[in-house]
Amino acid sequence: MSSSRLATAAGLHLLEAYRSVRRASEELARPLTAEDQMVQSMPDASPTKWHLAHTTWFFETFVLRRFGWYKEFHADFDWVFNSYYKRLGKHPQRGQRGTFSRPSLESVYAYRQHVDAAMSRVLSGEADASVVATATLGIHHEQQHQELIVTDIKHAFWCQPLRPAYMQPAAPEAEHRDSAPQGWVSFGGGIEAVGHSGETFAFDNECPRHEVLLQPFRLATRTVTNGEYLAFMEDGGYRRAELWLSDGWDAATQLGWDSPLYWEREGRDWRVFTVNGVRELEMAEPVCHVSYYEADAYARWRGARLPLEAEWEVSASRVRIEGNFAESRRFHPRPSEPGNGLRAMFGDVWEWTASPYVAYPGFAPAAGAVGEYNGKFMCNQFVLRGGSCATPESHIRASYRNFFPPQARWQFTGIRVASDERD
Amino acid sequence: MSSSRLATAAGLHLLEAYRSVRRASEELARPLTAEDQMVQSMPDASPTKWHLAHTTWFFETFVLRRFGWYKEFHADFDWVFNSYYKRLGKHPQRGQRGTFSRPSLESVYAYRQHVDAAMSRVLSGEADASVVATATLGIHHEQQHQELIVTDIKHAFWCQPLRPAYMQPAAPEAEHRDSAPQGWVSFGGGIEAVGHSGETFAFDNECPRHEVLLQPFRLATRTVTNGEYLAFMEDGGYRRAELWLSDGWDAATQLGWDSPLYWEREGRDWRVFTVNGVRELEMAEPVCHVSYYEADAYARWRGARLPLEAEWEVSASRVRIEGNFAESRRFHPRPSEPGNGLRAMFGDVWEWTASPYVAYPGFAPAAGAVGEYNGKFMCNQFVLRGGSCATPESHIRASYRNFFPPQARWQFTGIRVASDERD
Amino acid sequence: MSSSRLATAAGLHLLEAYRSVRRASEELARPLTAEDQMVQSMPDASPTKWHLAHTTWFFETFVLRRFGWYKEFHADFDWVFNSYYKRLGKHPQRGQRGTFSRPSLESVYAYRQHVDAAMSRVLSGEADASVVATATLGIHHEQQHQELIVTDIKHAFWCQPLRPAYMQPAAPEAEHRDSAPQGWVSFGGGIEAVGHSGETFAFDNECPRHEVLLQPFRLATRTVTNGEYLAFMEDGGYRRAELWLSDGWDAATQLGWDSPLYWEREGRDWRVFTVNGVRELEMAEPVCHVSYYEADAYARWRGARLPLEAEWEVSASRVRIEGNFAESRRFHPRPSEPGNGLRAMFGDVWEWTASPYVAYPGFAPAAGAVGEYNGKFMCNQFVLRGGSCATPESHIRASYRNFFPPQARWQFTGIRVASDERD
Amino acid sequence: MSSSRLATAAGLHLLEAYRSVRRASEELARPLTAEDQMVQSMPDASPTKWHLAHTTWFFETFVLRRFGWYKEFHADFDWVFNSYYKRLGKHPQRGQRGTFSRPSLESVYAYRQHVDAAMSRVLSGEADASVVATATLGIHHEQQHQELIVTDIKHAFWCQPLRPAYMQPAAPEAEHRDSAPQGWVSFGGGIEAVGHSGETFAFDNECPRHEVLLQPFRLATRTVTNGEYLAFMEDGGYRRAELWLSDGWDAATQLGWDSPLYWEREGRDWRVFTVNGVRELEMAEPVCHVSYYEADAYARWRGARLPLEAEWEVSASRVRIEGNFAESRRFHPRPSEPGNGLRAMFGDVWEWTASPYVAYPGFAPAAGAVGEYNGKFMCNQFVLRGGSCATPESHIRASYRNFFPPQARWQFTGIRVASDERD
Repeated sequence: MSSSRLATAAGLHLLEAYRSVRRASEELARPLTAEDQMVQSMPDASPTKWHLAHTTWFFETFVLRRFGWYKEFHADFDWVFNSYYKRLGKHPQRGQRGTFSRPSLESVYAYRQHVDAAMSRVLSGEADASVVATATLGIHHEQQHQELIVTDIKHAFWCQPLRPAYMQPAAPEAEHRDSAPQGWVSFGGGIEAVGHSGETFAFDNECPRHEVLLQPFRLATRTVTNGEYLAFMEDGGYRRAELWLSDGWDAATQLGWDSPLYWEREGRDWRVFTVNGVRELEMAEPVCHVSYYEADAYARWRGARLPLEAEWEVSASRVRIEGNFAESRRFHPRPSEPGNGLRAMFGDVWEWTASPYVAYPGFAPAAGAVGEYNGKFMCNQFVLRGGSCATPESHIRASYRNFFPPQARWQFTGIRVASDERD
Repeated sequence: MSSSRLATAAGLHLLEAYRSVRRASEELARPLTAEDQMVQSMPDASPTKWHLAHTTWFFETFVLRRFGWYKEFHADFDWVFNSYYKRLGKHPQRGQRGTFSRPSLESVYAYRQHVDAAMSRVLSGEADASVVATATLGIHHEQQHQELIVTDIKHAFWCQPLRPAYMQPAAPEAEHRDSAPQGWVSFGGGIEAVGHSGETFAFDNECPRHEVLLQPFRLATRTVTNGEYLAFMEDGGYRRAELWLSDGWDAATQLGWDSPLYWEREGRDWRVFTVNGVRELEMAEPVCHVSYYEADAYARWRGARLPLEAEWEVSASRVRIEGNFAESRRFHPRPSEPGNGLRAMFGDVWEWTASPYVAYPGFAPAAGAVGEYNGKFMCNQFVLRGGSCATPESHIRASYRNFFPPQARWQFTGIRVASDERD
Repeated sequence: MSSSRLATAAGLHLLEAYRSVRRASEELARPLTAEDQMVQSMPDASPTKWHLAHTTWFFETFVLRRFGWYKEFHADFDWVFNSYYKRLGKHPQRGQRGTFSRPSLESVYAYRQHVDAAMSRVLSGEADASVVATATLGIHHEQQHQELIVTDIKHAFWCQPLRPAYMQPAAPEAEHRDSAPQGWVSFGGGIEAVGHSGETFAFDNECPRHEVLLQPFRLATRTVTNGEYLAFMEDGGYRRAELWLSDGWDAATQLGWDSPLYWEREGRDWRVFTVNGVRELEMAEPVCHVSYYEADAYARWRGARLPLEAEWEVSASRVRIEGNFAESRRFHPRPSEPGNGLRAMFGDVWEWTASPYVAYPGFAPAAGAVGEYNGKFMCNQFVLRGGSCATPESHIRASYRNFFPPQARWQFTGIRVASDERD
Repeated sequence: MSSSRLATAAGLHLLEAYRSVRRASEELARPLTAEDQMVQSMPDASPTKWHLAHTTWFFETFVLRRFGWYKEFHADFDWVFNSYYKRLGKHPQRGQRGTFSRPSLESVYAYRQHVDAAMSRVLSGEADASVVATATLGIHHEQQHQELIVTDIKHAFWCQPLRPAYMQPAAPEAEHRDSAPQGWVSFGGGIEAVGHSGETFAFDNECPRHEVLLQPFRLATRTVTNGEYLAFMEDGGYRRAELWLSDGWDAATQLGWDSPLYWEREGRDWRVFTVNGVRELEMAEPVCHVSYYEADAYARWRGARLPLEAEWEVSASRVRIEGNFAESRRFHPRPSEPGNGLRAMFGDVWEWTASPYVAYPGFAPAAGAVGEYNGKFMCNQFVLRGGSCATPESHIRASYRNFFPPQARWQFTGIRVASDERD
């Protein structure tokens, strides 16, 4: 497969796609000072500067180092910006990334330019299939880190005493609020195919496409709103152990959870920290920044359950990929539009599924160090589907499998309930 | 359903079954002094005395307290011996059980007698269906704790400087060693039914019986031996990160694993701690006391994988339930007998499956506090199948789902590999 | 120095003293079952059984092993019952002592008899000076562990859900309550000698006797009562950071201290856990089970300070050694008798001093492994003086230096304030 | 006392002194980028930016806020840059200082200018005695933070993968190496006065001046060199428990110490990280970056001991204050000059004493929140004397008491041994 044949979902030539993605990362970093880009507020999050460097390292390591003519930018970056690829040797402790004042941000930008120039050379000519595949993987890898840039800086700013805003609010848009209660869409079950197929890009964990057997089920037309979640809270949701998984109860108790992350009580009202700073909680917006444990407890309280990832995928395959994505630069979920069918399956909030993250039947990780990309995390995590308001639109698809540990809350994670279809 | 209709797998009347199980627990405790029965070597394990009391508490709480004539044995036992049932109110921290010198062991035996007398009264008459169901659950509950008595005391003795033996070795038996390499049995896949059905007892997590869609697969004829596992170790199994799940590598590194639990190197040889004390490692015996992480890494090294729980169950449904169980009082796995078909699917070692422990489609936990029995643990654990040398024979069945966190090693846990059937 | 010349404070021949002390330890253990004697409620405390064995190990290790005719009782006890003497090789982790069900209590008693028989042989003849000195040290060592038997079992019983009593209350005694406020005794300061001198036994840390220069000071006539301490609490003592040392505030906050250890609020009243179980708090009794941090904060609140250890010793040298000691088997401090001079300088509660535990000028630890007895702890601890209701009367003297870390609360520790004498 | 009468040790008018000290802080920060000034490598250390802001906060809080005309720079800085003054209300967790990207460094400099302007107004007029005293305290406070700027950035750079240098090496200077062994200077003991007296500035913890009684002692002519310390290491110093305090042994074992901080073995040689980067270890230089535990163990190995702080002060009062201070901008200790008397008592390395940090007799902390400056840390720390290569020369004096916990190693801390004078 030559590079001229390979194109992204958006129809761009690979080099254009490369440039576009690289530019988008830098756009996300633009509102941030060099100091902002240093902050690591917890081991799970990384500094913006590190994201900018690590995504560059990925191209250098997996694409450029195979070319004899390529001169590395800095001898130590080889290991300094390795995240977790054990086959490539040592790497710094993840929790120490916030202490790297050197290389400077300026130097990281120079690194980006150095690698961009070399990548342009590679992608302008006739690249072989392996280079094309790896460069394409690098582009999707960088998109993943774009989402993390947003979620990590949101957390970083929330942890600071001055609570700065990442960006100014976008212009207000026409109101569209769904005042009707959430409805259901029914699916008949049976043998269905899930997983990726075709020539377009997908991660190895979406493959192979295979058949699953589903029971009849119903899926909520929209995700749970703040107002609905508040009803759960007011009904003692965080104090009733019987609603929770045992590990979830322990986590909630030890970490003192009594609301979603970023919610703050002020007198009788709730306020919420957003990328634009703190503001009033909007009841019609999707609830966001909840853990799997909270999603699961909420569903149990509702007499429902979370969907299986296969149920979600089968349903999502029937709707168009459109919604509130990173491109809008709102970085906050929107209230659902009125309607009867499935709404906002893509964008707004990642939807927790009831499915632990495991290999598909016949799964084989990619060869070499990139084989560590997905497979080695298939344990103690749950699958999320659909993308969020921080996901680039061209990055998401119905078969896409995101995954996080059940206690994670700093991603834009929400809840869509499901239930068995009873006769 | 009246008690006269309800019978255990072994065909006993319920009262007989009750008495038999209660006697068996006390038999397990017989070799142990009151001091031995105090020891809690880690929070995951419990003292023998606690097991004897907690199983009694189960009958008192869920069966006897509904009868007006029943006088409780001690006002505080209500909460002192509660394990984790949140709906029943407070309970002591699990890790503190080893500090309870009071009640004394003598007093715990008096408690058992008090409850046994009352249970005899209940089970001698016409008990209603709910009492019968709960008493039956209590019997199976006590059998589970019997296995824990053995695995917990083994760990407790191993942690002590004097390394005592739990019991004397059983009389030697005729040797039967399978010197042939492990073979494979092939299965065609397709739609298969799994889960419990019928009138006999099963835990709620084995229900409902439902259909699954399987790909063609192969299952190993026997479990992995110590000798085979040693080959993995000698090939750098514990030092090659690429063989491990990320969480597994972290666990192995932090906990300093370089062999299964209870193995000890002595010069060039390996020795192993057993319920009879320390002795030479027998190469033909099934490897035992490995975590999910080790099982998974071993399978990857072998170019194989762990079976899905449905694959295991479909296979196991075709063989008889026989093997090396608790009744033999060996409490150690035996070398496999020669043969071509599936061997030792039951007994010897619990077999790790690749399946995270989740609810079956349509799963509904039992009503009331006993609903906390299984459902609330459906997270961060993996399913094990088949029972072990510490499982009572009448306790196991093909649909039985045991579950432990992936780092657990103190149960009798081993490895049977599977693979995709390739054309 | 021959054994015939060496005698204890009570005037007994060494063998008589040995037997008397060994008997006293066993008397303390008599109310306890074998199970009780297993309990270790925290790493700082040890099981009674361990105390009984370790004190025996001390005689075996430092006295008996030098005799060719001595046969050790058990080959492993050599290291199993070593507490911390690094020069003697390995020893078990201190926090694991509660998991030793073996050796059994019966076996520990047999060990005691074995060692007692050999010690009788040694002490009946003409022992050389080194043997006499070490045996004498062993006697005083065992007395120290007698106090720990009491304080450790009190803590162990408090941690248990059933809160058992260690012993029945002693017969009530004539009331003597000091209803007058605490007074002061003035001392003129100047050059004073402190430390042990003479032929009687003292620990190495009490030597050498040396001169110190003191400013004029005043010492409280009695220790602080529960009632007085309650006034501090009611004045916000535990919530006013300005009263506390920085480390003390951190400890109080992290550990949730809001009263002395063993106090429990019941409605408006305070109750207290004692060796006789829980009972009402007696306002006239000395406050007890407070840390150095609490003693220091209380003194600051009072506008006073804690005494220097030299101030305490100079004062105590002028009063007789009498008071409420272990021999009374009350194991609880008594209200002070009325009077004007210094009262209860000995017994009742150990009195925290403001002096960090450091070496006296010219201090030289004993030669060999017993040199680890005191010297290596001269860091991060504070000196306490005067003995407590759990100290054997023959064990205490004015020069005696006890020491504990500033956060320790499970000893019988109280407060006597001092202040500068202002003209 | 008016400001015209108050002057610093260097003889400057207070306003001049203020300006000079403020300038010196900014000089220290000059080689550092805004990113460098963000780094907090451990909770004990702080970012440079924080030091620049906190020292400014000190003047704002304790001096400027008493003037009605003063307008605060930012409403939140009141608590954001409070370090630990509990009476002033809340403050951020110390370990979170590295996550403050806002305020920006630029903004912190604006804050400094704002406060400097107001302080100029205050100090140009006739300030009352309390203002003068507090401003003077603020100047000395800022000097303390200047030393921390150097030690904290050294640690911050050492923790980074690229190991940057804080500054370029100073011009080489004439070699002066003491090849002779260390000698001793004898002192006769007796009653001596220690502590600060007179009109010049001193911290409250240096007061009141008072008499102490000393035994005859000897003090080493110079501090221990790297070469001498290496001999201790090569004699098994880090592996011989008998040389260590119990807490020290635990710290060394748990933290894996086998050399001073910043030493790195390279083949057979030792290299050392300095403010100029990594270079060869110079044997004649004073050993540096050792904990109290290491200093104490070294002294014991040598058959010596650490000096008491009173011994040190009495000795140091007889020599001039001169040496290798911060003004040289070397920030590294120099080899000792040859000679027979006491050398380098001031500068180069702080010298651990055997004295726990406690109050002097009659000590009274300053009134108000500044009373928290010193007194509340009088626990679990040891006194160090003499200043270091990172101490401003005008900051140090014979009575100066520095203090750190015994495990601290990131300050420029070294060893001067003492011993008893034996007849």
